[in-house]
Amino acid sequence: MRVDVVAVGTELLLGQIVDTNSSWIGEQLAAHGFDSLLQIKVGDNLGRVETAFRGALAAADAVIVCGGLGPTHDDLTRDAIARVMGVELEMHDDIADRIREMFSARGRYFAENNLRQAQVPAGAEVIVQTRGTAPGLICPVTIDGVEKVLYAVPGVPHEMKEMVERAILPDLHARSGEVAVIASRTLRTWGDSESGLNEKLDPIIAELDTAGNPTLAFLASGWEGLKIRLTAKAETAAEVDALLEHWSARVQEVVGQHVFGFDDDTMESVVLDMFRTRGLTLGLAESVTGGLVAGRLTAISGASDVLRGAVVSYASEVKFEVLGVAPGPVVSETAAAEMAVGARRVLGADVGLALTGVAGPTEQDGMPVGTLCVGLAIGDDVLTTTMRLPGQREQMRQMSVINALDYLRRQLIARQ
Amino acid sequence: MRVDVVAVGTELLLGQIVDTNSSWIGEQLAAHGFDSLLQIKVGDNLGRVETAFRGALAAADAVIVCGGLGPTHDDLTRDAIARVMGVELEMHDDIADRIREMFSARGRYFAENNLRQAQVPAGAEVIVQTRGTAPGLICPVTIDGVEKVLYAVPGVPHEMKEMVERAILPDLHARSGEVAVIASRTLRTWGDSESGLNEKLDPIIAELDTAGNPTLAFLASGWEGLKIRLTAKAETAAEVDALLEHWSARVQEVVGQHVFGFDDDTMESVVLDMFRTRGLTLGLAESVTGGLVAGRLTAISGASDVLRGAVVSYASEVKFEVLGVAPGPVVSETAAAEMAVGARRVLGADVGLALTGVAGPTEQDGMPVGTLCVGLAIGDDVLTTTMRLPGQREQMRQMSVINALDYLRRQLIARQ
Repeated sequence: MRVDVVAVGTELLLGQIVDTNSSWIGEQLAAHGFDSLLQIKVGDNLGRVETAFRGALAAADAVIVCGGLGPTHDDLTRDAIARVMGVELEMHDDIADRIREMFSARGRYFAENNLRQAQVPAGAEVIVQTRGTAPGLICPVTIDGVEKVLYAVPGVPHEMKEMVERAILPDLHARSGEVAVIASRTLRTWGDSESGLNEKLDPIIAELDTAGNPTLAFLASGWEGLKIRLTAKAETAAEVDALLEHWSARVQEVVGQHVFGFDDDTMESVVLDMFRTRGLTLGLAESVTGGLVAGRLTAISGASDVLRGAVVSYASEVKFEVLGVAPGPVVSETAAAEMAVGARRVLGADVGLALTGVAGPTEQDGMPVGTLCVGLAIGDDVLTTTMRLPGQREQMRQMSVINALDYLRRQLIARQ
Repeated sequence: MRVDVVAVGTELLLGQIVDTNSSWIGEQLAAHGFDSLLQIKVGDNLGRVETAFRGALAAADAVIVCGGLGPTHDDLTRDAIARVMGVELEMHDDIADRIREMFSARGRYFAENNLRQAQVPAGAEVIVQTRGTAPGLICPVTIDGVEKVLYAVPGVPHEMKEMVERAILPDLHARSGEVAVIASRTLRTWGDSESGLNEKLDPIIAELDTAGNPTLAFLASGWEGLKIRLTAKAETAAEVDALLEHWSARVQEVVGQHVFGFDDDTMESVVLDMFRTRGLTLGLAESVTGGLVAGRLTAISGASDVLRGAVVSYASEVKFEVLGVAPGPVVSETAAAEMAVGARRVLGADVGLALTGVAGPTEQDGMPVGTLCVGLAIGDDVLTTTMRLPGQREQMRQMSVINALDYLRRQLIARQ
């Protein structure tokens, strides 16, 4: 089944907003076994929006439209759908009441144009809003005698995502005639390349290619790690779970410690959880990353259970005076070790992790751009390692964050 | 002149990469006075790529294609263009030599399929590569008796941007029959809303609407600030500069200190420059932002001239023991003041800046989510302020960074 996407909004064409919605929808469609072969951005112009809808419907079995459902005169998706369906817009009283109530509950002034959002093309089914004001729409359309469907969802990403997951993907499965339940599990990995993982997993991939279920895909996500996604299909949720359980165990057996987590886990959340489970606290000393490790860990609510704090020792004197590093080259394993010990002591933590290195643009202390020295003070040990990382300044710094946290994770596993 | 955009690549439809290229191209086209009314993503399938090119050319005067110019069998843009032009691909010896030389200079193995990138549709003009291997193309096409043009550039963003600026925008201006020079200046602002700025600038906007040159546009960029972009057109670069100079001074007169910089300036680069000019150093104490202020400042190469470092005092004990904050509520102006003084002392800096607040999800010390207390130790003074910021955890934290730096910037100006 081919499901194309149309994103509506002049701001998308002007580059004021990047269209991440259709990328996200494309990813979901692929995971659920639907083809998305064309994705279009069109501005807020009734004629062009209508033309885009007709063109997309001519080529695809279903079309998902995002954006253009708001209250202003620029929001033309409803009008264009009514033209394509050849019907009128009808005021939907339940939706109108709901919108009025939302405004009154929040004590906000109610402008009458908000009721535009309660207009529904005759014959369309409503996807009830659970978060905002504009409802989504499921619109049956007949094109050259063939029954197709156009879905419309708001352009606000969290409203759009909720409706796609709750209403559109199930409706697509129902229309595709499949009664299957589909679900995915993602293994998050760090430490091997896509080609490396591909080679190791070759026998499993061959088995899966023959079986056809589940499917396995690699998704490169930069400094978020490389994802391996298994998508399984079966008649019941229990069967899907069993398939995912079996094959993710098979994959993990091969990939081993490179798997740091599953689904929504991040390297930061995994490391924080490991510390929490062990009842340990962490103190950081950051030089090359200048606070990014602490910044990423504290993005997670509840990090305060684990993270005591960090000393960002950007100037060498701060390394010497605050952390007690002995004078000498500051991009070295010796300095990293002393920084880790210093961070643990100064911040009163159980474990000290330190990063010093060269982000560029030029070399430092005779060490090339991309050098990262990590120090770890844990129990009675002080461990160090040196890595050569790729990339210019920002990429090198972000790669340093995940590499240092991964080093910490592996050391914690080794000490279990 | 209507210039539409086609992005080629299956990875874009699958959501593995977000198509930021066409957003960027759309922004440039708008700044140069060209309309972009439709932007399409299509996968690596020869028939569909050809259909997309034909459809786009039928509606627009010119089409910019990005992606699909690489060396692999999936890179089909050249083949599809040749079909649309009704010509053959020809091997271009100069390009082939250049690609071979690049591989040999970098000591990399040369796979023969790299020569696919030296194939050029007969009659197309080459946009020489200055950064990578695949050249760009300028392809004249006749559609229904009308002469149009299709440009092709690589999908690698920095290669694409360089070619659009160097070759495509000038070529479009030449074709549009205008001899004008067009340039923009962006005023970066923080501290007032779009509607607030709009109201203040109303008389200037009315004047510009009448004159038609330069044009003025607001671009909201979240926690990067609100941009006011002036785009001027004239026969010579000197005239354009004079127009931009005059009108940006007029705008600045009205907007005043909300203007923190121009063009590529960021709040971080501006604050670092002000410190550097004054010969001052900075030390940070971060609680709610957990290292993000230091992380953003150190993203700028040369930050080490100014930034001594930071104490990320996430645990209250670190505030008390390392920074010398007196026991008591840690989300308060008193604590912020003591943190700033402590950071200045511990880090040996001239100026201390501190942030403490509540990022959520729940309130703390009786203070609601969104509370930010800033402390500033500068000269003989210790200043504090409290703000209420919008947003959930990550947004609140990022808003804290720019608001605290903006507070620091205004205090530095006040002390000139």
